[in-house]
Amino acid sequence: MVSEIQTTSEITVKLINSMGSDAMIAAAAWVSTSYEDGLQRAIDNPDDVPGVIKYLVKNRHGSPFEHGSLTMYTEGPIAMYREWHRHRIGHSYNEMSGRYSVLEPKFYIPSPDRPMFKDNNWKAGRPKFLTIEQERERMLSDMDGKAGPRTPADQDPQVRYDHLIANLTESYELAYEKYEKNLAMGFDPGLARDCLPVGIYSKCWVTVNPRSLMAFLSLRLHEPERGTFPSYPLWEIEVAARAAEKLLKEGWPITYEAFVKNGFVAP
Amino acid sequence: MVSEIQTTSEITVKLINSMGSDAMIAAAAWVSTSYEDGLQRAIDNPDDVPGVIKYLVKNRHGSPFEHGSLTMYTEGPIAMYREWHRHRIGHSYNEMSGRYSVLEPKFYIPSPDRPMFKDNNWKAGRPKFLTIEQERERMLSDMDGKAGPRTPADQDPQVRYDHLIANLTESYELAYEKYEKNLAMGFDPGLARDCLPVGIYSKCWVTVNPRSLMAFLSLRLHEPERGTFPSYPLWEIEVAARAAEKLLKEGWPITYEAFVKNGFVAP
Amino acid sequence: MVSEIQTTSEITVKLINSMGSDAMIAAAAWVSTSYEDGLQRAIDNPDDVPGVIKYLVKNRHGSPFEHGSLTMYTEGPIAMYREWHRHRIGHSYNEMSGRYSVLEPKFYIPSPDRPMFKDNNWKAGRPKFLTIEQERERMLSDMDGKAGPRTPADQDPQVRYDHLIANLTESYELAYEKYEKNLAMGFDPGLARDCLPVGIYSKCWVTVNPRSLMAFLSLRLHEPERGTFPSYPLWEIEVAARAAEKLLKEGWPITYEAFVKNGFVAP
Amino acid sequence: MVSEIQTTSEITVKLINSMGSDAMIAAAAWVSTSYEDGLQRAIDNPDDVPGVIKYLVKNRHGSPFEHGSLTMYTEGPIAMYREWHRHRIGHSYNEMSGRYSVLEPKFYIPSPDRPMFKDNNWKAGRPKFLTIEQERERMLSDMDGKAGPRTPADQDPQVRYDHLIANLTESYELAYEKYEKNLAMGFDPGLARDCLPVGIYSKCWVTVNPRSLMAFLSLRLHEPERGTFPSYPLWEIEVAARAAEKLLKEGWPITYEAFVKNGFVAP
Repeated sequence: MVSEIQTTSEITVKLINSMGSDAMIAAAAWVSTSYEDGLQRAIDNPDDVPGVIKYLVKNRHGSPFEHGSLTMYTEGPIAMYREWHRHRIGHSYNEMSGRYSVLEPKFYIPSPDRPMFKDNNWKAGRPKFLTIEQERERMLSDMDGKAGPRTPADQDPQVRYDHLIANLTESYELAYEKYEKNLAMGFDPGLARDCLPVGIYSKCWVTVNPRSLMAFLSLRLHEPERGTFPSYPLWEIEVAARAAEKLLKEGWPITYEAFVKNGFVAP
Repeated sequence: MVSEIQTTSEITVKLINSMGSDAMIAAAAWVSTSYEDGLQRAIDNPDDVPGVIKYLVKNRHGSPFEHGSLTMYTEGPIAMYREWHRHRIGHSYNEMSGRYSVLEPKFYIPSPDRPMFKDNNWKAGRPKFLTIEQERERMLSDMDGKAGPRTPADQDPQVRYDHLIANLTESYELAYEKYEKNLAMGFDPGLARDCLPVGIYSKCWVTVNPRSLMAFLSLRLHEPERGTFPSYPLWEIEVAARAAEKLLKEGWPITYEAFVKNGFVAP
Repeated sequence: MVSEIQTTSEITVKLINSMGSDAMIAAAAWVSTSYEDGLQRAIDNPDDVPGVIKYLVKNRHGSPFEHGSLTMYTEGPIAMYREWHRHRIGHSYNEMSGRYSVLEPKFYIPSPDRPMFKDNNWKAGRPKFLTIEQERERMLSDMDGKAGPRTPADQDPQVRYDHLIANLTESYELAYEKYEKNLAMGFDPGLARDCLPVGIYSKCWVTVNPRSLMAFLSLRLHEPERGTFPSYPLWEIEVAARAAEKLLKEGWPITYEAFVKNGFVAP
Repeated sequence: MVSEIQTTSEITVKLINSMGSDAMIAAAAWVSTSYEDGLQRAIDNPDDVPGVIKYLVKNRHGSPFEHGSLTMYTEGPIAMYREWHRHRIGHSYNEMSGRYSVLEPKFYIPSPDRPMFKDNNWKAGRPKFLTIEQERERMLSDMDGKAGPRTPADQDPQVRYDHLIANLTESYELAYEKYEKNLAMGFDPGLARDCLPVGIYSKCWVTVNPRSLMAFLSLRLHEPERGTFPSYPLWEIEVAARAAEKLLKEGWPITYEAFVKNGFVAP
């Protein structure tokens, strides 16, 4: 009678609705210096738009980028949302409730290509992680000529990955079984769920404007080469941020390009 | 060579762009309790929408009303914008700059039907004002059998109104003349304008979401009968708020109706 | 070699630092109407302070209540912080990181006196819960003359409570064991923790101003009698809110009293 | 019977109250990685504080800088407040009301050492201004061997400055005279004041946290040499910002130093 759990690595970010364009941002900026109808100017002289947007981004005139909106439907593990919800300004959320509904038995496991092994140079605030392949190379290089595996961290990374998945899955199963039992006994769902892990899936509507989206991207994309101020986000939130980045690029291509050229510094 | 000034009572609020609908708000709310596609449910069962929106407004579940956006083009005197710009949350502004452009010689004067004479019961925080007609009645009633006009406040209200318009206009003219002279001497426009009055026109793009718009309306509409917490806004900002109220009503009619029924208390 | 877990029901909210007073709020308000030194006036005429504060609260003039600050050290389960972090305006947070540190094996279990059994009238958005004692009475009344226990929800509430604690504890233990194993294998702590439950303890600094604190309290205190707009918060966040309420009362007693008298409606 | 007006160049920013310190910011940061009592650590190991603060500023971990507060009493012309009030996040204001009180006849005039003449290279968004002395030099250099003064901008800068002061003063006097007449006729003070200029003085309480103060400073200080992203603020708001900068430096010296070293980029 116990529900079977489902495990997945998928993180979803889908556009629900949007308002605005690069032209609208340019027109919002032009209101400060010109008596023209800015939207008409953007239509008549589309070549004026990139110039003003580049200027705004470079000189951090951020307010014009607030005249736009983008609503996304998202799915991912609670651990990911814990990071997302820390963005307060220009971010609106409506999330699945664990108090008013029964959470589905759907849980996150990393795909094999997630960089996940701590690098020798790992340190708080600036963590680096290796993929299975990279970790194998590191081990070969580090342990050159030394004796074989003795600690859990010395096992082959593929074996360790398999253990990780088994550990997570086993724990998820027990947690969900207990959750269902707690519910069946008539407990407050907001209490019954306390055993559920941060790897369980939730879903959330997120609405942002282009400016607050850029602020989010500036902190949640790892851009060691192109970024002026490199960030070291959790992998799962970066996957979501990459999807949101695409939506910005599609809806506001000139703004996006200026943002990238400006080292991912949000105006 | 002096520019002629223009005086007007018009306050402009025009829709530039918007995103969202009552259905979208309902769908945002449903994400917390249901695994269905909320937008589809709103299409399939449109009758479900009003119920959830009424419930949300009544119980002050405000976040679903943030999934929407509304951009307005506005024109009005600086005195009006001074009030508007105090709204910080969920409000985005781009305004005409007096530092980078020459302000037009366009100034605000009240139309004759603005309630503008201090009532006997006027007091800070809860001011009441009378129209020309009402003021005339008040004077008749107050001064019944007493001696005639002796102070400026004892003149006929129409005469006083004419004086007001003349006072404002005369002052506006001198201010703009001095402004142009200051500019002609090569001064920083941001300094040359210090003589310009708060009655001069500015223009501004304003972007809000339905929730922040309701918060604005709750404080900037005078609703002594229907409002749970009556407000006493400046007349000019209320004129703008009435126009914005219409935009809310047109774009989110069910939300608007629930807001009114709930005593203009923003969720 | 597995760490022993600790379970507790304690939720901690302690004052770290604060700025401000009722006098300071009154003085901030007086700046709008008076040229006096408001702080001096509050010293010279302390009796003026309650009047203005009552007026401000009643008429929802909220901005003076932002001139103050209160920093709290808090501890509680992640499930509680998930609710707290949804407060964005005037709320600042710094929380224990599961990416940069190893989370302690400390977990939440409800104390026996937490209302936790779903009432017959439970419904989403307006949940009601019964204590062990109340649930026992309900069962007696509901099942009067009917056959005995057949489903998990029909067991004695004390027995069910014991099962709940066992379920949570067992699940917590397995989760923490797997977590430690994942860490030992060299995995990203931000990934290794995905099996950890929302019942695990975190800690967080929270800074608010009196206005944002009142907004928080208005939504996180259950005040069916005294509240104008009753809320139905999660028990654990209400425990934290009750502690924060005391801090408001201690630091701003007149403000607090006005807030209560005004039906817990935040100005 | 007309009130005499007062003109001044003074802009006031005075500390009313504050909470916090560099140690408190460090302690707020340490909560994310350590189980120690951070405030105790800052006392026991004061040398740990500068390191963490530099790290936080450099890597734009901004949230710890929100655990502090600073309330200022300010006075300046409305033109200055128009810029200040555009800062919405982490900024709280209570300002003199022109609706509920009679504004004093106190007006702003620039001191002779304000850079105020448009440079040849002036352009919107990046304006440059010259002092009286610099402008005299520019004229000599530009007009070398050319014919003498013909336009208002060709007069000696000291003469032009005197004209500016006269223009402003004359306009201020008429505006205030008309304002008083409008009030005497019993008009709504919120309407009677429409002729008052943006050079009239207002006063305002401003409360910020160290993070929002740094964001303000990053946009309102002109730092062409030391600033990573140079800003071109209005002179009057920069004067206020310089005074606020001192308050930051006094209350949070290590934070301030890190902010300066980091090119005035707010974390």
